[in-house]
Amino acid sequence: MTPEFGLIANYFSRPVRVALLGGGDDCALLPPTALATAVSTDTLVSGVHFFHDVSPESLGHKVLAVSLSDLAAMGARPRAFTLALTLPSIDEQWLERFSSGLYAIADDYQIELVGGDTTRGPLSITVTVMGEVDAMLALRRDGAKPLDDIWVSGSIGGAALALHAINTNQVALAQMVVERMERPIPRVALGQRLKGLASAAIDVSDGLIADLGHIAERSSLGALVHWPLVPIHAELVAQEQAVQVACALAGGDDYELCFTAAPEFRETIAALARPLGISLARIGQMSADHGQVCVLDGEGNAMRLASAGFDHFSHRET
Amino acid sequence: MTPEFGLIANYFSRPVRVALLGGGDDCALLPPTALATAVSTDTLVSGVHFFHDVSPESLGHKVLAVSLSDLAAMGARPRAFTLALTLPSIDEQWLERFSSGLYAIADDYQIELVGGDTTRGPLSITVTVMGEVDAMLALRRDGAKPLDDIWVSGSIGGAALALHAINTNQVALAQMVVERMERPIPRVALGQRLKGLASAAIDVSDGLIADLGHIAERSSLGALVHWPLVPIHAELVAQEQAVQVACALAGGDDYELCFTAAPEFRETIAALARPLGISLARIGQMSADHGQVCVLDGEGNAMRLASAGFDHFSHRET
Repeated sequence: MTPEFGLIANYFSRPVRVALLGGGDDCALLPPTALATAVSTDTLVSGVHFFHDVSPESLGHKVLAVSLSDLAAMGARPRAFTLALTLPSIDEQWLERFSSGLYAIADDYQIELVGGDTTRGPLSITVTVMGEVDAMLALRRDGAKPLDDIWVSGSIGGAALALHAINTNQVALAQMVVERMERPIPRVALGQRLKGLASAAIDVSDGLIADLGHIAERSSLGALVHWPLVPIHAELVAQEQAVQVACALAGGDDYELCFTAAPEFRETIAALARPLGISLARIGQMSADHGQVCVLDGEGNAMRLASAGFDHFSHRET
Repeated sequence: MTPEFGLIANYFSRPVRVALLGGGDDCALLPPTALATAVSTDTLVSGVHFFHDVSPESLGHKVLAVSLSDLAAMGARPRAFTLALTLPSIDEQWLERFSSGLYAIADDYQIELVGGDTTRGPLSITVTVMGEVDAMLALRRDGAKPLDDIWVSGSIGGAALALHAINTNQVALAQMVVERMERPIPRVALGQRLKGLASAAIDVSDGLIADLGHIAERSSLGALVHWPLVPIHAELVAQEQAVQVACALAGGDDYELCFTAAPEFRETIAALARPLGISLARIGQMSADHGQVCVLDGEGNAMRLASAGFDHFSHRET
């Protein structure tokens, strides 16, 4: 590390609370827990996962939010994270703003930064989160059963609509929905409440159909989704159907939870949504047709879908 | 993730052994342990931490070795790691060779790859390792006491000599020592044996004096090193003194352990080196002069040192 880069540590050094030892040693030390440790790593690359000109606060928020969302999708309680920050140069104002966004969401979810690495290079950020969860109750992807209900939290397609609006220079629309893209809300409390109820869960990062496909694939099942039941983002309603479908089914970056549960839990699940202030929608059922993820329109006809999942930020020319 | 990038997972998917759940879900799950969890993250960036044309096998080795070295310096037993790989494009041959180097060292140290992320962008690699250690016995940087001996394992300066040889086009010399730079050996077994003996430890990544300075700083002490006692790499002996000093004191990337211990443990420590096949050298003592890291030459005079620690790969023009 150059001495210059050593200064960066100033923006990321707070006294530790949960950790026995934080940054500044060869390793951080976390106290033992009786539960399993849930671990996930995500990288955001400039120009691929975010625009070069995104606000540093939003970037600090998002880089931790997407990893917290993985803990949420496992039903795990957040404990600690590491931050690997690769920067082309040192911009103290940028670091100040980035760290304030990062610490704000870290405090909201009571997760502690315990160390990391700072290097020189093209801007990219890798976060590794650690949480704890009873392994017997963890929300895996492979536990869905035929005829389980398929649920999704909140609304879908807002993040993709924001990207679409930016790419098509719809400035007013972009302003209305950009928050959904830049400041996703990880459903951590919901994930923890779903333990013992959901048979499988995933967070919607690649797109609803792609992610539901991961549950189907890992559970050796198929899935049937009713398009009119998909809770599309309010600003999507006014868009033409092609945009609705592209954003809500093939778009990504929503970080809502998609999960499956036996029909007997319908009322219990509906009841837990209200106190959390999160809407939950039942959008279909799992089927025994391995590999088939099918979406039916309002008339009960199968809809044709373009391939799901794409590189979100490769379209805008800058 | 694009479907194309999904294929990359094939190179990094093996059945899990220790983990309750490996890659392919939102999180990996590690079973509980009664010990503290030691965590460390390191990023290697192409052109900064390694040459663009380094062999993929060596890169796979090194990216895990540098993180294992952090566990070694803590006295922790390796358990699991995640891999965040950012690639400009997909080169199947490169992936095959990189993963074979990575898995070879992972097997040597019985550490399990439990997941990660693959993204498109300029080549860089972030590894997060997790190990376990009794927190009361962990080798921290802040435990050194005045008059403790300063020890260093193996030999020092070989990695920096390799870089120097490459930068000055000394092809034959470079070939002789490049292994020290590209294939460092993390001193994991040594670190575990030093628990209860060493009062502080660090791995030599930034350079001997810089890293010893971290121990001194965190322990609120100073350090006195005797240059003739520093175990310089065999190929350094024939070099002029300026190169010797630059490589062995200010060079980095050696990944040997530098540690302190009370003089009463001298014989015990010397005895444990032999069965491990590692030499250990006593190179000086800690002092009460906070902040002073001083190196004495053979006549007992203080040596002048250029500032320690530098960006290793910024010198070669390619």
